[in-house]
Amino acid sequence: MNLRTPGPTPIPQDILNALSGPMIDHRGPFFRDIYDRVSANLKQLFETQNDVLMLTSSGSGGLEAAVVNTLSPGEPVLAVEIGAFGVRLGRMAETFGADVRWQRVEWGQAATPESVAASLDANPDVTSVLITHNETSTGVTNPIGEIAQVVKQRDRLLIVDAVSSLGSLPCPVDEWGIDVVVTGSQKGWMAPPGLAMVSLSPRAWEAVEKSTMPKFYFDLKQARDYAARSQTPWTPAIPIFYALDASLTQLLDGGLPAIHARHQAAGDRIRAGVKALGLSLFPEDESYASNTVTAIKCPDGFSVADIRKAAADMDVVLAGGQARLSDSIFRIGHLGYMPEEELDEALEVLGKALEQVGFAPAAATA
Amino acid sequence: MNLRTPGPTPIPQDILNALSGPMIDHRGPFFRDIYDRVSANLKQLFETQNDVLMLTSSGSGGLEAAVVNTLSPGEPVLAVEIGAFGVRLGRMAETFGADVRWQRVEWGQAATPESVAASLDANPDVTSVLITHNETSTGVTNPIGEIAQVVKQRDRLLIVDAVSSLGSLPCPVDEWGIDVVVTGSQKGWMAPPGLAMVSLSPRAWEAVEKSTMPKFYFDLKQARDYAARSQTPWTPAIPIFYALDASLTQLLDGGLPAIHARHQAAGDRIRAGVKALGLSLFPEDESYASNTVTAIKCPDGFSVADIRKAAADMDVVLAGGQARLSDSIFRIGHLGYMPEEELDEALEVLGKALEQVGFAPAAATA
Repeated sequence: MNLRTPGPTPIPQDILNALSGPMIDHRGPFFRDIYDRVSANLKQLFETQNDVLMLTSSGSGGLEAAVVNTLSPGEPVLAVEIGAFGVRLGRMAETFGADVRWQRVEWGQAATPESVAASLDANPDVTSVLITHNETSTGVTNPIGEIAQVVKQRDRLLIVDAVSSLGSLPCPVDEWGIDVVVTGSQKGWMAPPGLAMVSLSPRAWEAVEKSTMPKFYFDLKQARDYAARSQTPWTPAIPIFYALDASLTQLLDGGLPAIHARHQAAGDRIRAGVKALGLSLFPEDESYASNTVTAIKCPDGFSVADIRKAAADMDVVLAGGQARLSDSIFRIGHLGYMPEEELDEALEVLGKALEQVGFAPAAATA
Repeated sequence: MNLRTPGPTPIPQDILNALSGPMIDHRGPFFRDIYDRVSANLKQLFETQNDVLMLTSSGSGGLEAAVVNTLSPGEPVLAVEIGAFGVRLGRMAETFGADVRWQRVEWGQAATPESVAASLDANPDVTSVLITHNETSTGVTNPIGEIAQVVKQRDRLLIVDAVSSLGSLPCPVDEWGIDVVVTGSQKGWMAPPGLAMVSLSPRAWEAVEKSTMPKFYFDLKQARDYAARSQTPWTPAIPIFYALDASLTQLLDGGLPAIHARHQAAGDRIRAGVKALGLSLFPEDESYASNTVTAIKCPDGFSVADIRKAAADMDVVLAGGQARLSDSIFRIGHLGYMPEEELDEALEVLGKALEQVGFAPAAATA
């Protein structure tokens, strides 16, 4: 099966095999060694000097941790929404009582530094900005480096959902000045779902001291205290640690520039292939189209479900649209482990699936 | 290595191998089949007609879900504490704003139905009772069946931490009338940590409708909605589902009576062996000593750390004490997968470890 969802992602067999290691005491020396290695390797890949904390949860759990540990009920915050995951992050803050001001960007577009600056200037009381780096639902990557500059110029806390970007796309956490960054093991990290990774800047830790939102399982101060002895507060998902230990070593062997180049090449390859099939990209401007997931407009008069079904019957799993895009787009994930032949197979099968549903693209009939 | 902590627990190799299955789409048909099978099997093993929801978290996350979905800030609840995990459950409720009334039982003892009845009668305004079934920190099992009767007679909601009991000790959820019950994959279930399982009675779902504590990641209404289509709201820890799928089939093959008999026999075997070594059990009365974990008093003048170190050097991992018991007791886990020879080896190695640290038991010198 060629799994082309933007998480879970395919995993090389040697990393899958690592999952089958024996159970160990999560308070003992074997786990400590793994924890230390994973933690040190994540710091390198996050390009941060700050600790990377690991939580047993999906990426969503990591995002909840980011919100409830740094914010307080009634606190005004800016949520920049460019898709379904931007909505989720802002709603989390609302659920726990924050006073969320929404900057709603049309889905399919990126937020611009200018628009975020304008939102902040129009809302001088907001303390923090919640924003998605790579919006998995629309296949759009926000220019977080530039956005971070306008947020930092205005001295606000920057909380970034980097679930589907970090470890795949350039995201130098410290250089850009991201205060809280969150990712998940099942994305570019070549590991299964089950662990969220969260890192906080010294400034974010100051916010933690003031935060009054309730937290227990996701209490990051507890996580930090346990991290100091290479443990987690609660029993961790040990097999996912085993996998991550193996995958991070492989990722670091190649190095960050190679990782970024591989994702750039994959994005280019998939976009070119999709357009050659006569399809249109969902992002309005290719300059911000994501290099980890490509969102494709479903041709008028055709059904996302039919196209996905036809592809699945040929063993290629495409992702559907999410929320209000569920019937109008479909998506191809290209992050983490993705041999070129699997990307080419996905394009080839997509072409056959389109033929099967009766789509006669302009390019093919030209 | 002979892992004798009360979770994580040893896992048979065929179940470990199941962890290495390929990644799949958690919104697709392969996951749906696994979800349905795991869910149906858990219902049988929980002895409940209610749905069993699965959350990607440790058992602690499941307990937080139980609390934040059924209670509201300011709501008076009774927390019955017989050890560190009883404290944790009550503190969770306090953290999210409940008005917690504590019934503090001396550690090493069980709560009695009479004492819980008295607490409820002294606190007529409490709506709910939070209590641990099997207190892993003290090796004591509460008589939840009898306690449930007094709680139900008084028409209160009963929320039970069954993390280290369900799937090992008798706990017929519906027959006893437990409203919310929580367990974790790494305990008697012969699977790795990473999934919490939670089940709610119709009465508990009514409480959910009134609950105003904030929740997002652990929102059980969302989990129920997704469960209706055999999915989870957030990306689940797929490998742990694979393992649980394999282990539940094995557990059901043997049947519940065999599971309970195996744990009774293991408890008897370990208690007899420990006493034969001249050691004393921590539970004051053997009638409520746990059949999943045995807590042992560290002999006067000896160090828990030294005994554990000596055993670990012989490849047997014993658990230490927790919280205020950390220097005064140590523990042997006997739940889930536990061949008799591994239990005997643990006792034999414990005997050697005691010799090494210079403990000359009365029994040995008699």
